[in-house]
Amino acid sequence: MHTARRTQIMYPKDIGLIILKLSLTSGCKVLEIGTGSGAMTLAAATAVRTSGHVHTYEAREEFAEIASRNLKRAGVSEYVTIHGTNAMDGIIGEEYDAAIMDVGDPWPILPILRRALAGGAPFVSFSPTVNQIEKTVETLAQIGFKNIQTFESFIREIRVDTGKTRPATMMVGHTGYMTFAQKVSRDDD
Amino acid sequence: MHTARRTQIMYPKDIGLIILKLSLTSGCKVLEIGTGSGAMTLAAATAVRTSGHVHTYEAREEFAEIASRNLKRAGVSEYVTIHGTNAMDGIIGEEYDAAIMDVGDPWPILPILRRALAGGAPFVSFSPTVNQIEKTVETLAQIGFKNIQTFESFIREIRVDTGKTRPATMMVGHTGYMTFAQKVSRDDD
Amino acid sequence: MHTARRTQIMYPKDIGLIILKLSLTSGCKVLEIGTGSGAMTLAAATAVRTSGHVHTYEAREEFAEIASRNLKRAGVSEYVTIHGTNAMDGIIGEEYDAAIMDVGDPWPILPILRRALAGGAPFVSFSPTVNQIEKTVETLAQIGFKNIQTFESFIREIRVDTGKTRPATMMVGHTGYMTFAQKVSRDDD
Amino acid sequence: MHTARRTQIMYPKDIGLIILKLSLTSGCKVLEIGTGSGAMTLAAATAVRTSGHVHTYEAREEFAEIASRNLKRAGVSEYVTIHGTNAMDGIIGEEYDAAIMDVGDPWPILPILRRALAGGAPFVSFSPTVNQIEKTVETLAQIGFKNIQTFESFIREIRVDTGKTRPATMMVGHTGYMTFAQKVSRDDD
Repeated sequence: MHTARRTQIMYPKDIGLIILKLSLTSGCKVLEIGTGSGAMTLAAATAVRTSGHVHTYEAREEFAEIASRNLKRAGVSEYVTIHGTNAMDGIIGEEYDAAIMDVGDPWPILPILRRALAGGAPFVSFSPTVNQIEKTVETLAQIGFKNIQTFESFIREIRVDTGKTRPATMMVGHTGYMTFAQKVSRDDD
Repeated sequence: MHTARRTQIMYPKDIGLIILKLSLTSGCKVLEIGTGSGAMTLAAATAVRTSGHVHTYEAREEFAEIASRNLKRAGVSEYVTIHGTNAMDGIIGEEYDAAIMDVGDPWPILPILRRALAGGAPFVSFSPTVNQIEKTVETLAQIGFKNIQTFESFIREIRVDTGKTRPATMMVGHTGYMTFAQKVSRDDD
Repeated sequence: MHTARRTQIMYPKDIGLIILKLSLTSGCKVLEIGTGSGAMTLAAATAVRTSGHVHTYEAREEFAEIASRNLKRAGVSEYVTIHGTNAMDGIIGEEYDAAIMDVGDPWPILPILRRALAGGAPFVSFSPTVNQIEKTVETLAQIGFKNIQTFESFIREIRVDTGKTRPATMMVGHTGYMTFAQKVSRDDD
Repeated sequence: MHTARRTQIMYPKDIGLIILKLSLTSGCKVLEIGTGSGAMTLAAATAVRTSGHVHTYEAREEFAEIASRNLKRAGVSEYVTIHGTNAMDGIIGEEYDAAIMDVGDPWPILPILRRALAGGAPFVSFSPTVNQIEKTVETLAQIGFKNIQTFESFIREIRVDTGKTRPATMMVGHTGYMTFAQKVSRDDD
């Protein structure tokens, strides 16, 4: 199933960069669209605890349950609210400090998400295909985001063994692209 | 100057992965050897505030000053203590939750650093050359670290422009290698 | 100027793979569309001499001249005919053993090129953008090519210096994508 | 078995670059040490036929047989002589136009190989580990080779499918390093 596969797609190499580039820290209020199995949610919750919170939307019940279990096991559920609804139907709260998207079609949700963000807040969308990032970047530019940049990241293991050190034979060649942007603040408008 | 160059060598792609793999979160007590210009220190302080603290060692006075300025500007100096001494001469404190090294010769310091770490605590050393990682891995294995793994990470920008999307022509091909390990806890001994 | 830049875009890492995957060897009759400055042409001529020949099309006079000079200097001009016309206006000859394209819009030329190829002959198109490869692959599939595969290649220099070996700091992150395919032979029709 | 694995280690991405950088063309006399299963030998024979020849050394009888079969099947055996002896015991012929090595310990053979090469002739050694390339580069510099450069190459497949184009999930992260050099010609001595 396509969606099942998608939940394993974010790797530490991507999640770490997102935590850093979104400046997630204790006290931040984070909006996430597309919880999946909760790997990104867990890292975001770990970054914003103990005074921050992650509001995450996951309309697929089976994933909401998997994520809930994973967050409980990691001891961070008190910092996360999983909303079992589609973000298209409305986002609760406003003035979010940062937003993270990991859904197949991010662009129709972007205007709604934009209204929920504080001025100047950073944003990232994670997408596996080139076509998704084209549409995401187009929409972001149209609705008032700036500093739009897309990256892909790689990680390679080195088998260190004195006298016969060499990189691992196989590596992951692709997980997804990360498009970062920033909501234009009122002063920029 | 060799040392000047080294202070610009850690990139978000590396720092983000380190924050994540060392599970840095609010309340952690972090030990850093080799402050450099403070880029890693700043990210660690952002991750552990408001109840955690970063103790960082930088014997080169000019770098300690640059780092101090950068941390102040970022508003995180209250979560960092810069020790202007060589870690070889002694590390203040114990039961650190995690340790980060970014020095040219990490191996002689490792036994001292090990004593300051809590059992099971994660560790990373960042080094530009293959020879450094060979000696680091050898020493880590000898003095009781486990789960030793070395990685290099890459990031590539994609120039997204509908109808003519392509990766950027130039990219950074190397910053350094990250060797992760974990102090054997008492139960493992 | 766009076209000037394009002439420097093929690198040994790409050209070498093309020579190999197209099985270019002494005696082959090769068709090239888009001579540019002649780097690929030179390598193809070197591969097919002394009994083979490269027919290459370059409608831009200034490039035809640069390529002609480069091929003369390399001592392979007798194995190359540069046609100063647009391949859309017709391709001289038939039963080519292999074809190489390096033009901005390869797809309208593909049906003409197909007729000039021998059954089972290998083909490659080199393009810098993702959108070009989508249109190229679509067209190839429609007009009877098989074994369609697209690759990008990378090369990284290692600065070998005993005791301080490390990869070079900068590398080329993108030149272009290579789409390989094979003309369906009569037996496959 | 270690040696069995080594025979599958050279990939088109490496072989293509070697053919190009060694300027192999019809008429060249090529020396190869370490035939393995003959993948590089086959490509070299294809490049130098019909008036050139490849002399290849393979002391392991089982590999010499596999290679012989592969070359016959590809129709290039008349352009190759497989010597079933160790190159350390002597190399037949002289004034070779190029040399290719793919053995675990290339350095003790280098002085013998050097004498068999024509002045100015290009050379490549393929090795999986960093330690091998350090010793190879050291030895090459000591015995009179110039233009010494080491590279690694990568290839990534792009799954082109209009509207959902993305790179393949897995890729080969390492085969081996290629160290290129050139014998100092008499004029340089």
